[in-house]
Amino acid sequence: MFGRDDAPQVLTEEQQQTIHEQAMRILSEIGTDVLHEPARRLLADAGQRVEDERVRFDPDWIMEQVARAPTTFPIQARNPERSVVVGEGPPICMNVGGPPFASDLDEGRRSGRLQDHDTLVKMTQATDLLTFVQSGAVEPQDLDVVTRHMDCDYSVLRWSDKPYTCYGTSGPKARDAVELGAIVFGGHDAIAERPAMLGIVNPNSPLIWDFRMTDALMVWAEAGQGVVVTPFLLAGGTSPVSVAGALSIQVAEALAGVALAQTVRPGVPCMYGSFFTALDMRTGSPAFGTPESVFGILAGAQLARRYELPFRGGGGLASANSVDGQAAAETQMMLWATMLAGTDLVLHAAGWLEGGLTASFEKFALDLELLRMFARLREGVGFSEQELAFDAIREMGPGGLFLASDHTMEHFKEWLDMSPLFFTPDFAAWQGQGSPTLERNANAAWKKLLESYEDPGLDPAIDEELQEYMAKRRLEPVVEED
Amino acid sequence: MFGRDDAPQVLTEEQQQTIHEQAMRILSEIGTDVLHEPARRLLADAGQRVEDERVRFDPDWIMEQVARAPTTFPIQARNPERSVVVGEGPPICMNVGGPPFASDLDEGRRSGRLQDHDTLVKMTQATDLLTFVQSGAVEPQDLDVVTRHMDCDYSVLRWSDKPYTCYGTSGPKARDAVELGAIVFGGHDAIAERPAMLGIVNPNSPLIWDFRMTDALMVWAEAGQGVVVTPFLLAGGTSPVSVAGALSIQVAEALAGVALAQTVRPGVPCMYGSFFTALDMRTGSPAFGTPESVFGILAGAQLARRYELPFRGGGGLASANSVDGQAAAETQMMLWATMLAGTDLVLHAAGWLEGGLTASFEKFALDLELLRMFARLREGVGFSEQELAFDAIREMGPGGLFLASDHTMEHFKEWLDMSPLFFTPDFAAWQGQGSPTLERNANAAWKKLLESYEDPGLDPAIDEELQEYMAKRRLEPVVEED
Repeated sequence: MFGRDDAPQVLTEEQQQTIHEQAMRILSEIGTDVLHEPARRLLADAGQRVEDERVRFDPDWIMEQVARAPTTFPIQARNPERSVVVGEGPPICMNVGGPPFASDLDEGRRSGRLQDHDTLVKMTQATDLLTFVQSGAVEPQDLDVVTRHMDCDYSVLRWSDKPYTCYGTSGPKARDAVELGAIVFGGHDAIAERPAMLGIVNPNSPLIWDFRMTDALMVWAEAGQGVVVTPFLLAGGTSPVSVAGALSIQVAEALAGVALAQTVRPGVPCMYGSFFTALDMRTGSPAFGTPESVFGILAGAQLARRYELPFRGGGGLASANSVDGQAAAETQMMLWATMLAGTDLVLHAAGWLEGGLTASFEKFALDLELLRMFARLREGVGFSEQELAFDAIREMGPGGLFLASDHTMEHFKEWLDMSPLFFTPDFAAWQGQGSPTLERNANAAWKKLLESYEDPGLDPAIDEELQEYMAKRRLEPVVEED
Repeated sequence: MFGRDDAPQVLTEEQQQTIHEQAMRILSEIGTDVLHEPARRLLADAGQRVEDERVRFDPDWIMEQVARAPTTFPIQARNPERSVVVGEGPPICMNVGGPPFASDLDEGRRSGRLQDHDTLVKMTQATDLLTFVQSGAVEPQDLDVVTRHMDCDYSVLRWSDKPYTCYGTSGPKARDAVELGAIVFGGHDAIAERPAMLGIVNPNSPLIWDFRMTDALMVWAEAGQGVVVTPFLLAGGTSPVSVAGALSIQVAEALAGVALAQTVRPGVPCMYGSFFTALDMRTGSPAFGTPESVFGILAGAQLARRYELPFRGGGGLASANSVDGQAAAETQMMLWATMLAGTDLVLHAAGWLEGGLTASFEKFALDLELLRMFARLREGVGFSEQELAFDAIREMGPGGLFLASDHTMEHFKEWLDMSPLFFTPDFAAWQGQGSPTLERNANAAWKKLLESYEDPGLDPAIDEELQEYMAKRRLEPVVEED
């Protein structure tokens, strides 16, 4: 269970082929708008048909480029022991990213602040269940919008020594991320040789590569950093209101992005990303934890494997406005699909609430507990002689009380999974405590996690260099073409 | 996904064989206590070794008996259109059974009453997501404990026309269930030919067949009704504190029960049941939704299939005391495992709360919504020409707004899954409504379901006969040997 090879096949071979063929038709007959002149030139030079801003692709060329991307690749961490290989081993999970709001029971829902960002980074650093950090964990709205991307990356580099996805929603921001990374990891050549970050690229669906994202993609590809191409598709909004139709656009966009990255720098690490769900037509908002989004993860993983690209998808996504039964139910739909799919990289694995508008600290604690249980499930059933326990069964015999047995006393702490978060006192005791729901217990849990945080430190010379770079950049006007 | 053939294999072939061999050793070397003289005589006559109350079994004989049980079997319903075949098609789900308490937001948690039982039966009847009814949905503590089993079965027979599991925790109670069923379904011969109910049998684990349960098993088997043999195993309590050890007891107990039923009446329908989880050693209570319980369902299903018996397991089990994030998280752990295992029969699929101490109406509504989503997932991804939507994609082109497209307007109501329960207004609107959590929405949902209930009616002559039987039995002393 939860392996790449035994993932549920929600698409038959034939259905995958149908999606593939339609994606190739989309790329060759409809094409995509590429609102970035140097990118269009590069694609034209590579033999693709360019008319005004529209680029139509040769399917064979697309597949040749995609084949240049590695099936697995390393991302180094500031602490070498925390370096990872993407596409091997269990899912690489990380904290939520992108919400404008932060929330916890003590302070309620508020605009995100740098201190909230730091807290999320520290909690991510403090748990072994997350092996990657996402910059932009929450938007620090107390900082200048023009330069706060650097503050987010600095927050990650200063308070964590895990590998990370950098902030970068435009070329100049992506370039700052590369510069900051180069300072920490020994220069541009060093990070080109061994990538030090992942950059997330979302085309402007359907079928538009806008200037900013294309620019960021090219910056990361040039610098040899990992490029995660993730179409952000909402059925009934940015895609047809059907799973099959949306998947064909997902393939078209993802492969076009990967092909462009490979054109910029052959062999650069790329990932096939899936962020797909449907709009709730009653509110116009994306709905998470729905059957469509479950299909999106499972089908996306199958398609990524078809193209031999590591898969980014899923996460602890939920629509709910509070950490209630709806939030947990939606999150479990997504996490089960994420784990069953054998997903390689999981953004937003902890802390996502309110459709991604809020980074919730209590949700963070709930999600970690679910990840902990999935990690336990991944270990499988133990079959040691002691666990088979024939001697204990014989000794106890019919009617034996295992509760009091030596065998139980000796092993229960090791073998029994007792949830640190889901603790259920008897009803009367629970009422006596004020009938706490999960949210209250999760509040205590994230505080305990934060208390356990240990500062990994940062070389003062590197720290100074980072500060100098950021100080210099704060004085320069950031030009963001569009 | 969710089929019998593509269920996750948490046990390898070799591990299944190891469990099987240990179970056979348990049965032949340790044996089980059978506290029922006629049963012991039957087993002795069949060549099993009986010493005092201990019975040691010949593994070959066990397997011969088990092979006599059918791999699928029909259970007829009062409404023939609702008759089912156990072991075919999607999981047969039913309401919770057994809790001493009932609960809803309006009246709070209270001792179960007949009216609560009727309400649970009516809600079960009203939803297509549950295709079976469980008698004893809640213990009607306002009724005489000696005869209330009949009131529960009557509640099921009067207010529902779906197939059912009868009440029966002893021979005399099982006999009353058979008599009531015979009245409704045209006599003893008719129900022997085409079973009209399932009876649930839990041995007194570990390895004791107590008088009452053995007696009930023999009554149902004699009458040709379906016998669901379900070891109730708690790791660290009634079994070793390990999954592998517990599974070997499960196999030993389940197969011994099936073999006994086949000895009573060869070919009688039997099921392999699994009810397994671990004790939470901090409270001494069973913990639901844990990794152990997930393994129990998935491994149990594999073992049942090995013995070619239909599988009963899983359900919407949770430990939590309220319908909060913990309840939903635990329930999802169990339901995902239940569905992935391709489980044939699911007791407690809706309404289970507080480790089974409470039948919660709000939990009932939450569970139904989860079952609805699983049913949608079972349908898979649609691949019609319209769903592939190439023409719509071409018409919209890059940057197209699918939200306003004819294609979306034409199809979204059919294709989009919009949860009736998980509805998320924007944060400000939600706050304006008093920040309702799932529990409040679930309260409205079960009331709406109950309002939709339609009385299936009952032939007045049959009703009178049922009443007469119960009236007569109320005057007789019920003898329950022990």
